[in-house]
This record gives sequence, structure tokens and C-alpha cells, in this order.
Amino acid sequence: MITPLTPLDWKRRATKLYPEQTAIIDGSMHLTYREFTERTWRLSHALRDLGMQAGDHIAVMLPNIHQMLECFYAIPQFGAVIVPINTRLNADEIAYIVEHSDAKIVIADREYAELFHDIKHRAPQLQLVIEVIHHESPDISVAFADREYETLLESASNTPFETVIDENQPLSINYTSGTTSRPKGVILTHRNNYINATDVLFHMRISHEDKYLHILPMFHANGWGSVWAYTAVGATHVCLRKIDADMILKIFASEKITISFGAPTVINMLLHAPQIELFHPVRAIRFATAGSPPPAAVIERSQRLLNMDITHVYGLTEVSPLISYCEWRSEFDTLDSTTIAAIKARQGVEMVHNGETKVVLPNGQEVEWNGRQIGEIATRGNVVMDSYYKQPEETAKAIRDGWFYTGDLAIVHPDGFIQIVDRAKDVIISGGENISSIEVEDVLYQHPAVLDAGVVAVPHEKWGEVPKAYIMLKAGQIVTQKELDDWCRERLAHFKTPKAYEFVTSLPRTSTGKLQKFKLRG
Amino acid sequence: MITPLTPLDWKRRATKLYPEQTAIIDGSMHLTYREFTERTWRLSHALRDLGMQAGDHIAVMLPNIHQMLECFYAIPQFGAVIVPINTRLNADEIAYIVEHSDAKIVIADREYAELFHDIKHRAPQLQLVIEVIHHESPDISVAFADREYETLLESASNTPFETVIDENQPLSINYTSGTTSRPKGVILTHRNNYINATDVLFHMRISHEDKYLHILPMFHANGWGSVWAYTAVGATHVCLRKIDADMILKIFASEKITISFGAPTVINMLLHAPQIELFHPVRAIRFATAGSPPPAAVIERSQRLLNMDITHVYGLTEVSPLISYCEWRSEFDTLDSTTIAAIKARQGVEMVHNGETKVVLPNGQEVEWNGRQIGEIATRGNVVMDSYYKQPEETAKAIRDGWFYTGDLAIVHPDGFIQIVDRAKDVIISGGENISSIEVEDVLYQHPAVLDAGVVAVPHEKWGEVPKAYIMLKAGQIVTQKELDDWCRERLAHFKTPKAYEFVTSLPRTSTGKLQKFKLRG
Repeated sequence: MITPLTPLDWKRRATKLYPEQTAIIDGSMHLTYREFTERTWRLSHALRDLGMQAGDHIAVMLPNIHQMLECFYAIPQFGAVIVPINTRLNADEIAYIVEHSDAKIVIADREYAELFHDIKHRAPQLQLVIEVIHHESPDISVAFADREYETLLESASNTPFETVIDENQPLSINYTSGTTSRPKGVILTHRNNYINATDVLFHMRISHEDKYLHILPMFHANGWGSVWAYTAVGATHVCLRKIDADMILKIFASEKITISFGAPTVINMLLHAPQIELFHPVRAIRFATAGSPPPAAVIERSQRLLNMDITHVYGLTEVSPLISYCEWRSEFDTLDSTTIAAIKARQGVEMVHNGETKVVLPNGQEVEWNGRQIGEIATRGNVVMDSYYKQPEETAKAIRDGWFYTGDLAIVHPDGFIQIVDRAKDVIISGGENISSIEVEDVLYQHPAVLDAGVVAVPHEKWGEVPKAYIMLKAGQIVTQKELDDWCRERLAHFKTPKAYEFVTSLPRTSTGKLQKFKLRG
Repeated sequence: MITPLTPLDWKRRATKLYPEQTAIIDGSMHLTYREFTERTWRLSHALRDLGMQAGDHIAVMLPNIHQMLECFYAIPQFGAVIVPINTRLNADEIAYIVEHSDAKIVIADREYAELFHDIKHRAPQLQLVIEVIHHESPDISVAFADREYETLLESASNTPFETVIDENQPLSINYTSGTTSRPKGVILTHRNNYINATDVLFHMRISHEDKYLHILPMFHANGWGSVWAYTAVGATHVCLRKIDADMILKIFASEKITISFGAPTVINMLLHAPQIELFHPVRAIRFATAGSPPPAAVIERSQRLLNMDITHVYGLTEVSPLISYCEWRSEFDTLDSTTIAAIKARQGVEMVHNGETKVVLPNGQEVEWNGRQIGEIATRGNVVMDSYYKQPEETAKAIRDGWFYTGDLAIVHPDGFIQIVDRAKDVIISGGENISSIEVEDVLYQHPAVLDAGVVAVPHEKWGEVPKAYIMLKAGQIVTQKELDDWCRERLAHFKTPKAYEFVTSLPRTSTGKLQKFKLRG
């Protein structure tokens, strides 16, 4: 018998087996699975009453609040497609996505009123804007919406909702962050989402007694599967509208959080939280991080000070998004803490369900597993997107001969663990030698005065390109360029040391913590 | 991107990521994943050299030895179908299966020589018999085979083997034990096997550092998925040719076993092992059991004496085979040990991946969750078999309106946990009242002198049917019928107490521990 692989079935399971269990905590608001599922039925009915049908696209721009989780289930459960929008984009970028995605409805938090007030002029196909007023939404007087979310729900039917889903139909279109070009719309099917969440469930050892804090924005590849995986087992989703280090530590303690996902920058923030002294972890918090490899020192300190058990995972929106995790092996236990942290910074090995991942040379051959030869990470399997929405030529560039090419450059260690050395476009080619900008950044990171660092190529008459470092110092720290240069020369081959240093007060990062190096290149 | 869901991909993963890890321990023989996979390639080539093609059926009758695991991968990896045969069947039953399954080749251990010596006369389509001589195979002079397994492998190519699989094509045909009629051939697809093993991986919390002892025969629904799940993570399969309680305890200790599956009768055997005094468990062994609900007392003692952490799972061959597990909830922790054991004896809740399971009345409505109303367990999802081989009318009887009907009668507790009260055909209807034979057996089990018990209906002039008990006493114990009758009357409604008792020296059980009640009914 074949029944569709869809994460929606997990809401059915949770509502049946854990009806009175807390599904969502959002501030003082608690929703049981019964209440949650009823709200999704109401929202589905409301959207259908507004004329939406299976196959229609609905854009959603919300923080990590309960309404966001409701949208993730209510929109696909009548066969429509959710288009989650990154809340950190500007009005132009948002308008591009709403228009390009052919969204017929936008659901947005009142906080973003100004970004949406003229959206219908910018995206002519858009029919309706629905405003969400969350209990923490700021009071804003700009009128931007046709309808209000809660009022819609109240007047809609609460009868159960069951529709027929094809597992290969789109569930979501997730726009990439687009560091260099216009964002691309990644079509992820029900099956894509299901298999990715299956890996998350298994490798993160998720159980029905977990309490998950949504630090990672849900708009990022559907929270890396977290919007689905915790529901599958009837665990509790804890919402977090705004990332604030002290608030996170407070919720860790008050809600007895057992697990969370987030960018490495979040871990860094927590380690520098003003109130970290008041945080006395009583239980370990499993924490999956990805985006850029967390510096070894950060991993080590987060374990010691916050009792965080960090798992480094790796992926991209195009692969739903996870394809590898840094598996812990008992022989690592006896290593010293620096080596352990170095191992934890690797992207690791392919997961059990995602399919096959390899690192290949331009000729398609796998690199040698010697920790030196650099190739591009390619993958195939059920987590690879269907396609880029309305961009067949971009799809054909990314998926070739049945493999998706990630654009990430990596080495493979003798034990098969993959480690990213750079994005293909961030490698610095100096006098014919490849320099990994990440390797140089890691050395700078280890300097006690450095808070953040970004290294990019600048043109050079003799060498073609040379590395230049942008440095953000810790508060109150002073260091000279000469000192940094000495530090690097001691630890790096000469051709890899930055030939210029610039001190900055902030570095441009995406919300997943990826350095936007094109901005540094200027 | 859609790639086939097949457990075969997990061998690829293990061979890539854990090439030098021990895949199989079989006595003093150790095979790494590299060696194991090479042997499967050789076997695939050998079978193809013998004329076998994708779609062909190959029957295999082997104990839990490394060659059995090899067959499970080598046969499906070129698109053929494995037909595992229960090693406890007699020559007639075996011939029926070989003939009915249209097997072209049989692979059998030398131990079964006599059972196969005239198989070609009984199954005319059979082309070839391959003999496996395992290092523990008995020396038998009966010639029954055309070829010898190891010689075939030696002369075959060891080149890698990759074929195109459709996830919905048959992987195995598993014949049911057929307690009342001829065994039926259950067609399980690659996807069926994959999704079942996905549930096993998740719910049994399997990791790359597990060492699994194959107590449960692999021919039983492909070892409930164990032939696949441990490979998926690169864990170690430990073989066990023969079930012997002292030997199992010895291997538990010597091989540092972390997990095993087996019938409740095995647990009982271990608790009565002559050498149990010498067994000092240093680590917990996760143990999944199913077949018949383990008596509460057995669960309690196995935890205390053997440090076994028992999970009760439930299923049938037709559902690949697992559909529910008795989930442990922290609120159970503080209950007394008898209540805990009673909870552990429930079949529990549906797993995360298997689909939907419910208990329904004859009119199709779900029973009330009150722990009293009895209905039949029905299920739908990706673990439900494709069909019964060459028995469309039987398939249509079992799968109706998109649901597979298990024939098991159950109640649902208020918390949603399912508990089987009886097989539909084993219920005793006395004066219009339904009596669960299992309930009566459980009461008899609690009597200190009783080792095993079976209760069946016998005709009765006035009541239609009444219960009769077959009793096997513990060694050295004596008890009268009157004492047993008093024991039952104190604990059961009067109409449920057996109206006759018969003492026997053994009870007819299948290899999974199911009572063959039709034999008691005579």
C-alpha cells in the first residue's frame, strides 16, 4: 500500500495520541495539540472561503510565533503552497518574492506594516493581505491589510479537514538568501520535507518529551524541519519572537528546554549574554547548528558554560536543508578538548535518509580522502528540491546528471568526514594557490581580542588576488595590525596571511550567520 | 528529486562510511562492511551467472548466519526477490512454499538436507539448489544440492554492483506462519521494508555503536527490519545459529550486546537459563519483543535479573511487520513495578512512520477509548504489504476500503494505548459474552506453579462455548484442578473461568511464540 509521505500526517498522529499535550508555548499562551489542530482547520477553511484552492501560493512573513506554525500546516493541508519570507528583507526584496512567487495572499505580522503598505502595486497578482496581530506585535498605525487573522479564524468553520495530497506536489517555496543575485524560489515537495524531518527525528534523537525552542527562524528552510519533526512525536514547540540572548537563557531555564537549533552567531551571543552569570544549566541542551562552521573555541565554551551539546549539521535550502551531520564516535571521547572542538566543527557524514553525498573534482571524480584535496560537495536523494520556481535554466545548472551541486568546496578526512573549506566563490586564488578564506578566519578567531572576522580576496598586481581581513574586536580590546599579522604568520603559510587588515564595528551576516562576502568585496 | 526508498542504499552508506567497521560477527568469523559488501557482490554475480534475472524469485532457508544476511542484500540488489523460509517447517510445508512462490533457486543450509532432497520433484519449476555449509552446519551425507555456496562466491566477480530499483517493486515474499490454513505469501516492497526499518531505527534509538544479537529469526518478516536497520548506521550484526539460553547470555557478555529482538518465550528461556547465576549484566540491553504480550511478571524479572529494557512492539508480517510500540512516558516512572509491567504488556501507540492504526467495530466506527469496548485493529500506511502473492481474493479480504484488517481484537485505553485482547478467531463466545482467551491465560500465568498456559473454546450444550485451559507446570510443581479453579474464580468473572483443565508437558507454539490454538482445539 502506498500512502503519501507528508509531514501533515504527523499532525494527525499528534492530535490523536497527544490531544491534551502542549503543542505550542508562545509567551503565556499555551495551545494543546487539539487546540492547535483546530486552529489550523479554521485557517484552512478561512483561506478556502477567500477563494484559495489547491495549488495556490500563499506568502507568509511572520516571526517564530504560533501563527507561523499554524500557517505551516493550514496552507499545505488543503493542497496550497506556503512561501515563507525572510523577515529581515527590505521592501524591494519582499516585493520581488511576493511577485515572483505568484502569491495570491500574503499573511504578515503587523510589525512589517510599512514593508507591505504598497505591496499590491508592486505585486499585481496579489489579491489580499492578512494582518497578524500577535500579543507582542508593536502598535503601528499604518493600514496595510484587508483582513485580520484572528477575526478570520473566529468566523471560519472548525470542522476537520482532510484533503488528498500527492507526496511529490510542492509543499513550500523557500527563497534562498541570495547573497549575490536575486533570490531563487526553491520548490520543496511533501516528500522532500518528510524525508528531511525523518533525518532530523533520527539523528537529533527527538522524543515525545522534548521541548524545542524555535531560535532558528522557521522561514529558513522550514526551520530545518523543526516545524514538522517535533509535531511528529507530540513534543512541545516553544516560540521565540525575537532573538535576545538574555531572553533565550531565561526561557532555557523557565521552560526546561531540551533542544534547539540555531546559527553559530546565536551561540556566540549566548556566550556574551549580559546575564550569563545567572544561568545555571541543570540539564544538557542538544543544539544543532549550521551555516558556517562554529569556531572550535565557541563550541568548547558553549559546552562548558551553557551545557550545550552541539551537533554540527550541514545543508542548504535546496536540500530541504540537511545532508550531513557531525557524528560523534566514542573514540573521540578521550581526545583533548581542542581536538574535540575541531572535530565538532566538521560538517561530518551523510545522514541515514538523505541519500548520497560526495565531494567531487571538476571532472566528476571523487576527491581522495586525505584531508587535502579540495572538491565541490554534490548530493542526490529524496531531500533534493524539485526545482527552482520558474527558473529551469538555474535548475539545470544546479542539478546535473542526477546530482545537485552545492557550490561548497570541501575536503574529506581519511575517516570520511567532510569539512567545508569555502564557498566556491569565496576561495582566494593567490599566485595560483587556493586559499580557504575560512581557514584564515579561523586563525583570526582564535586571537583573544577578535570577536568576528571576514576574509575576502582583493586584487593584487603580482599575485592576482591576496587575502584581506575585516576584523571586529571585542569590547574594550585593542590590537594593532602588526600584532594580528604576527599572529597569522605564526599559524599560516605565508601566502595565506592577509595582506591588509581593516577594523570594523560590524560584519554583514545573513540571518543564518553566513558572511555576505560580496558586501566586503564592495 | 526522487530516488528510490530502498534499504539497499544503507549498505552503500555503511560500506562507504564504515568500511573497516565490523558488519557481522558469526562465531569467530568477523566481516567488515567492505568484506560483507564484496561478498554480496560476488553472490549477486554468481546468481546472475546462473541465469537469474531481475524479478526472479529465490528461496532461502538458513539459520541466523552471515550467509543469510548476504542473501538479504545480494538477491534484491539485482532486482530479484528473496523468499525466506521458516526453518521450523516440515518437508510438505517447505515444498508448498517453494512451489507456490515460483522460486527458481533454493539456497539452504546443509542441516536441512533431508528436507530438500526431493524438492525438485515437489516443485517442478525449481532449477537449482545451492547448499550452504556454515562452520556450525552438522555433517550430513545426504546429497541434496547442485552447487555449494562458498565455491560459487569464490569463482564469481567481485566488481561493484549497481542496478536500478523501483521502490514499489517486491523485495521479499514472506510466508505467514499459517496457523489455520496454507501459508500466504506476503509481498513486501522496497518501500515497505524501508519505512518499517525507518520506524525501527527511530523508535529503538539505534546508533552506529550498537551491537545487535540476531535472536529473532531473520526469516520472520526480515527480522522485523533488523537485517536493514543495523546496516543503515554501520552497527554490528551478531549472528546466532541456534537459540540456546546459556549461549545467548554468554554472547551478551562476550560481545557486549546492546540490543536484541526476540519472542517473549526467549525472555522466559533466559530467565530459566541454567547459567543465569553467572550472568552479571554490566549494561542495559534494549530488547524489543512481540508476538504475544509478555506476561507482566516476565517483563519485571527480565529487567531486574538481566538488565533488559523491554519494549513491546506489535505487528504482523503483512505490515512489514511493525505498527505500534509501547511508548514509555515519564509519568509511568513513579508507578509500582506491577503497574509498570502491565503497561509494558500493552501494544501501545502507532509509530511515527508506519501510518495510521485504529481499532474498529464491525460497522467501521472506532471503538471508544474506554479500555473496554473491543474492536479489530485496522491500519493503513506505507508498511502495509503490496498483496498476497497469487491470492487476489485473500488480498481483497484483508485490505478493504484502503485499510488492512489485522484479525487482532483489541481495546483502546483512555490514553490511546492499544491492547490486544485476542485474535478474532480465538475469542470464546459463552452465553453471548465475549471471553478473551488471553485474559484467562494471563491469570493462569500469575499462578506460581504455572509455566505456560493456553485457553481455547470447547463446545458446550448450554452456553455454546466455554473456556478450557491447557496447563504446563514448572518443573517439580504440583497443583490440583481445584486449586487452579479457585485461583481463577478469585480473579475472573465466573463466566470467564475455565470449565475444564488439562495438564500437558508442552504447548504448541510457533517460532514467534504464538500459541497454535487450532492444535489445542484438536
